[in-house]
Amino acid sequence: MTTHRRIVLARRPNGAPTLDDFRLETVPTPTATDGTLVVRNRWLSLDPYMRGRMNDTRSYAAAQSLDATMIGGTVGEVIESRHPDHRVGDIVVGALGWEEVAVSDGKGLQTVGHVSKPSPVPSSVWLGACGMPGITAWIGLHRFLEPVSGETLLVTSAAGAVGSVVGQLAKRLDLRVVGVAGGAEKCAWVRDTLGFDACLDYKALSDPKAFAAALHEVAPRGVDMVFENVGGPVLDVALSQMNAFGRVAVCGLIAGYNGDPIPLRNPTWILISRLRVQGFIVTEHLDLWPHAGQELAGLVADGTLKYREHVVDGLAQAPAAFLAMLKGEHVGKTVVRLT
Amino acid sequence: MTTHRRIVLARRPNGAPTLDDFRLETVPTPTATDGTLVVRNRWLSLDPYMRGRMNDTRSYAAAQSLDATMIGGTVGEVIESRHPDHRVGDIVVGALGWEEVAVSDGKGLQTVGHVSKPSPVPSSVWLGACGMPGITAWIGLHRFLEPVSGETLLVTSAAGAVGSVVGQLAKRLDLRVVGVAGGAEKCAWVRDTLGFDACLDYKALSDPKAFAAALHEVAPRGVDMVFENVGGPVLDVALSQMNAFGRVAVCGLIAGYNGDPIPLRNPTWILISRLRVQGFIVTEHLDLWPHAGQELAGLVADGTLKYREHVVDGLAQAPAAFLAMLKGEHVGKTVVRLT
Repeated sequence: MTTHRRIVLARRPNGAPTLDDFRLETVPTPTATDGTLVVRNRWLSLDPYMRGRMNDTRSYAAAQSLDATMIGGTVGEVIESRHPDHRVGDIVVGALGWEEVAVSDGKGLQTVGHVSKPSPVPSSVWLGACGMPGITAWIGLHRFLEPVSGETLLVTSAAGAVGSVVGQLAKRLDLRVVGVAGGAEKCAWVRDTLGFDACLDYKALSDPKAFAAALHEVAPRGVDMVFENVGGPVLDVALSQMNAFGRVAVCGLIAGYNGDPIPLRNPTWILISRLRVQGFIVTEHLDLWPHAGQELAGLVADGTLKYREHVVDGLAQAPAAFLAMLKGEHVGKTVVRLT
Repeated sequence: MTTHRRIVLARRPNGAPTLDDFRLETVPTPTATDGTLVVRNRWLSLDPYMRGRMNDTRSYAAAQSLDATMIGGTVGEVIESRHPDHRVGDIVVGALGWEEVAVSDGKGLQTVGHVSKPSPVPSSVWLGACGMPGITAWIGLHRFLEPVSGETLLVTSAAGAVGSVVGQLAKRLDLRVVGVAGGAEKCAWVRDTLGFDACLDYKALSDPKAFAAALHEVAPRGVDMVFENVGGPVLDVALSQMNAFGRVAVCGLIAGYNGDPIPLRNPTWILISRLRVQGFIVTEHLDLWPHAGQELAGLVADGTLKYREHVVDGLAQAPAAFLAMLKGEHVGKTVVRLT
């Protein structure tokens, strides 16, 4: 019997997750039945949203089940198919989880190439700049922020998989773009390679007054839009410097994922500056995926859209990499190479 | 020389305003010069927004100046005119302030009748259901909440000048409408006279858990929209019971006007439930005023739209009435009868 490895949720984290919350298992590898296919996953995506799913609380998606394979985006190669739309050798993007081999009924799978004819976009990038994170960036910017040329945009987690794309797309729209990231190295990459106008190091500016002064210096005309991935003190300062009719797209609030939620200190700014603060989930805007995905793939293929990956080798390393990613220790998109 | 009385801001409040923050003065009554008119104010409106203007902080409008006449909406009679658009005897609605007689260049004045031909709408109601508060209700509901028949709306300060109109307009749109007000008497009026489906007494339900249970009981399918006048713990509970794609129109946050802002405890709901939270100011939507005003005046004239006024007699009583209004001691619109 052939076997492969998977990682399941062993218990729900209490606060910050630890390695003991995960369990590596060896399980029998399935074969295809009529209407299904078997995929050998090559790449696994590690993303902040997974932290939220590990809690058993009401949210927009069902909680990750205990003792079940951890959910997660994947790119893999079809190794067996009894499904009419998929043939052996197809490269498919999907959400097959933290598992080396998985069976699928084909739902939610997108074919992006074939082993015999590689795509101009490297496989792992379908999990990043050309995949869910990149499309999240595209949709948040275009559908929720509605930017107007000349306006100022603040992007938190600017070196992350989503934020790095937001800022680069925004620069193409003639916006002033200010990033926020943790550490001098990330900030330098955001500014020098991605082309943001400025990037503030929230770790070096941990005093809110110092952060406020620094933000005012790099956004002297005020902030018109915030693409929010983090929440907490940086968002509080940002709201206080927003111009009338500003927009905040709430994509993530990672600062509060591990424990008690972090309050918004002064909601009065929403009234005073007539702000629009709106949460969104990328999977609820499927109408925009084809257009966004095509644009992003084109920009990656021609080298315009820069990205950086933090590559971890082997499924067994996924839990540790996930914890490090949540702590902001990686620059760019965290992906696990499975084969 | 003729004189009249006015009330000026004597000093900026530190926390809750007190009577000592105001000063009653007797001043010479002006006469009209070319292009101006003189109005004897009959009614003065007292509204929560005035509290915000008393602070010297950045806001959407200039702060009330010290030693100047307090700003405020008025209805009055033209007693002298050298202005081409106004004749003696016209009843004019405007913002002539806490003053018995005022001179005006005509800007911002709306003529609603003439002493010889009274309007079917009582004069004071141009400061309430048919005036700025009523139009605020109309615009918040139609432009910012975008209600869909069958949805559930929560209205805070439901017995107030704005909230009372919001709920009645909403019932005409076939919504389930839940009010929040302070005290059994207000709640009974909101439910029995205004026709809200339910009204929760936040004073009797001061424990957030008790309030949450009571809200769930009267809004069993969840809350789709919040018309927010107050902020604080009630808003925190409301957010936790909102359905996906819910809308919050932020019209006022009176709970935090007197001191430190009251944080929003869990902004994560904005993300989890993909909410749209938007602040607005009625004076920035002048395009809708004629339509809204006409509809409201029609509903008042034919008796459909109910309102209640808390009438105070004489300018000298305005400061005390203002303080009482801020504390929620009045039911309905607070107006001061000046003559």
